[in-house]
Amino acid sequence: MPMKFPVYLDNMRATKVDPLVIEEMVKYMQEIYAAPGGEFGHSMEEEAAEALEKARQKIARKIGAKPEEIVFTSGRVESNNLAIKGTVLASGKKGKVISSRIEESSVLRSLESLGKMGFNPMLAPVDSEGFVKQENLSEMLSGAILGSIQFVNPEIGTIQDLKAIGDLFEEKNVIFHSDASWGFCKVDIDVRKINVDLLTLSSGLIHGPKGVGALYVREGIKLQPLFDGAPREFGLRPGMEDVPSIVGFAKAVELITEEDIARMKRLRDKLMDILLEIPDTKLNGPKGDRRVCNNVNVSFFGVEGETILLKASMKNLFLNTGSACYSRELLPSHVILATGGSFEQSHGSVTLGLSKWTTEQEIFYAKEVLEEIVREMRSISPLYRRS
Amino acid sequence: MPMKFPVYLDNMRATKVDPLVIEEMVKYMQEIYAAPGGEFGHSMEEEAAEALEKARQKIARKIGAKPEEIVFTSGRVESNNLAIKGTVLASGKKGKVISSRIEESSVLRSLESLGKMGFNPMLAPVDSEGFVKQENLSEMLSGAILGSIQFVNPEIGTIQDLKAIGDLFEEKNVIFHSDASWGFCKVDIDVRKINVDLLTLSSGLIHGPKGVGALYVREGIKLQPLFDGAPREFGLRPGMEDVPSIVGFAKAVELITEEDIARMKRLRDKLMDILLEIPDTKLNGPKGDRRVCNNVNVSFFGVEGETILLKASMKNLFLNTGSACYSRELLPSHVILATGGSFEQSHGSVTLGLSKWTTEQEIFYAKEVLEEIVREMRSISPLYRRS
Repeated sequence: MPMKFPVYLDNMRATKVDPLVIEEMVKYMQEIYAAPGGEFGHSMEEEAAEALEKARQKIARKIGAKPEEIVFTSGRVESNNLAIKGTVLASGKKGKVISSRIEESSVLRSLESLGKMGFNPMLAPVDSEGFVKQENLSEMLSGAILGSIQFVNPEIGTIQDLKAIGDLFEEKNVIFHSDASWGFCKVDIDVRKINVDLLTLSSGLIHGPKGVGALYVREGIKLQPLFDGAPREFGLRPGMEDVPSIVGFAKAVELITEEDIARMKRLRDKLMDILLEIPDTKLNGPKGDRRVCNNVNVSFFGVEGETILLKASMKNLFLNTGSACYSRELLPSHVILATGGSFEQSHGSVTLGLSKWTTEQEIFYAKEVLEEIVREMRSISPLYRRS
Repeated sequence: MPMKFPVYLDNMRATKVDPLVIEEMVKYMQEIYAAPGGEFGHSMEEEAAEALEKARQKIARKIGAKPEEIVFTSGRVESNNLAIKGTVLASGKKGKVISSRIEESSVLRSLESLGKMGFNPMLAPVDSEGFVKQENLSEMLSGAILGSIQFVNPEIGTIQDLKAIGDLFEEKNVIFHSDASWGFCKVDIDVRKINVDLLTLSSGLIHGPKGVGALYVREGIKLQPLFDGAPREFGLRPGMEDVPSIVGFAKAVELITEEDIARMKRLRDKLMDILLEIPDTKLNGPKGDRRVCNNVNVSFFGVEGETILLKASMKNLFLNTGSACYSRELLPSHVILATGGSFEQSHGSVTLGLSKWTTEQEIFYAKEVLEEIVREMRSISPLYRRS
């Protein structure tokens, strides 16, 4: 079978929506398009409300939660803000709020905001593979209000040990939030077995629609909404629920299979192996079961990630980079720096995100294209000294 | 041609998505699904970014704004919160914040929230047709920070004179926000001719997707974002833009025609006329050009709106009511009360929202169904005394 272009390996940032998800969404845009009703409504409102509750149940079931612990939002960034600022502001306390050095912007900036309001943000260090140093974390948690530690890192694929981390939080009696966006539906998680209070879930990373997400809020956790309006989502999030997107989100959750995950793992390992055949190439992040099934990240010594991205794009291969030029803030990846990687390693890093549709052919194509670009760029680089 | 069921006249709350809108959305879910890129990105990111900017231009053009004055949000409620709290908190001042008695929850509750933070919320009264009393408003505006006056009321269809109101704001040098959700694409508005600083625009009310909206922010207006994350939308709204929905929103804006509006107006007037043939029926809100093209609201004396809604639903006719039992807060419509209507008038009010697809047949069907329900309910009502 001939390979289809483009070869899209930017799935840590955005995914193609599954056709079966779209089919579900269209039904709720064309047939059952009313606002989801309350206790008394006309029959189309009721049908919309039923679809909403069914979606809530499906998503709750996936993580072992109760349906009433799932709050729908406009996506990951809103969920993180609601989880972090919502609980900290509702606590009525002032004090420490904890996170790690490899978190994504919405978490880090929520902490910064809290810092400006008089709270004390602290970031736990990570080891060379991106795992949070539990001793340091434990120390920081003493007397803290909340901590936010991501489940899976989107750049280097590190899967944190949420069970062990949750135990530390329990011991110190601190509210535990985790952005599980990159782990959800890829790594099993059961909130009944892990001491986590709030969990951010994303739709756009699992072939669901963009612009929708959820927050798991453990029963009893107090939360102040981010904005005001007629009460919806158990009083935690106003604004009419986007039923088509929510139904699509739930469908996407249903569609991910164990086989998909196993296949991605095999292809991930294959891709890692063949990329590391390229000289002076370093893997960023862990290997094996402690790395998410669909992430590969390597640094090519002497080549800039941004150049690789642009040259690969011309060959219809799409990937991502931690290069400074690529970021909107013109800073190199803080994640690789936090693992002890050099500025150059961070600048030259490339993230490849696989999906359930990624094929072996595509993996080999990626290797071929990257090898060629790296060879070419090194041959004209004054920085790269051949041995 | 036989009439299609259901007869959906709940278009002031939610609308069916236009098939042409869905077609556009699917393209950005299936073909150009990458995250919209920054200055340097791969070609799919660039294409997504171009689509985003094109959509921004289309929406800006519709209201005479510059593209960089349009900020995309998750919808009307978020836009209202961002507009009101964002500007008031960014002003660094304390003082009065003004609105009217017939605003929707997200505006009223944003003001309540500001009240709890030490600001002084005040609500301007309206006349019997729902028009804001300009003398009272003018008085309240003296020394205020911001005022929020809706463009069109969803319940009784009143179109406020934004030009005259904007002049009052200008005179008093107060920031002027308007929730234009129910007027956008139905009543012409040009921000170059009206002194309005912030304008909420909704997609879900014009056959666009739910879960997306925009806020017009006049150049120079300072705004504090509602939540934190990597800067997007000119630093005013973090979170990856939902390109498929935004593109769909812009498409929906393009699709509304003058003919659609003229047809809705004719059918609205027809529906009003035939409903008022039912004895003891009162029109709520104004007539003619000061009422939005797609809204009819009547109170049937002696009958509860909730009963009408449920009985109509059984006949596949979907509408809305200001009845207390219907609302999530079990309160009768504050809008009709504010116009001087009685508790009973509010409780028995029914809102019929037309769309560009509403037919004359449907209008007559609605009349027939409502007349029958009203007759039946009155015949068994101890409250209703026949003359």
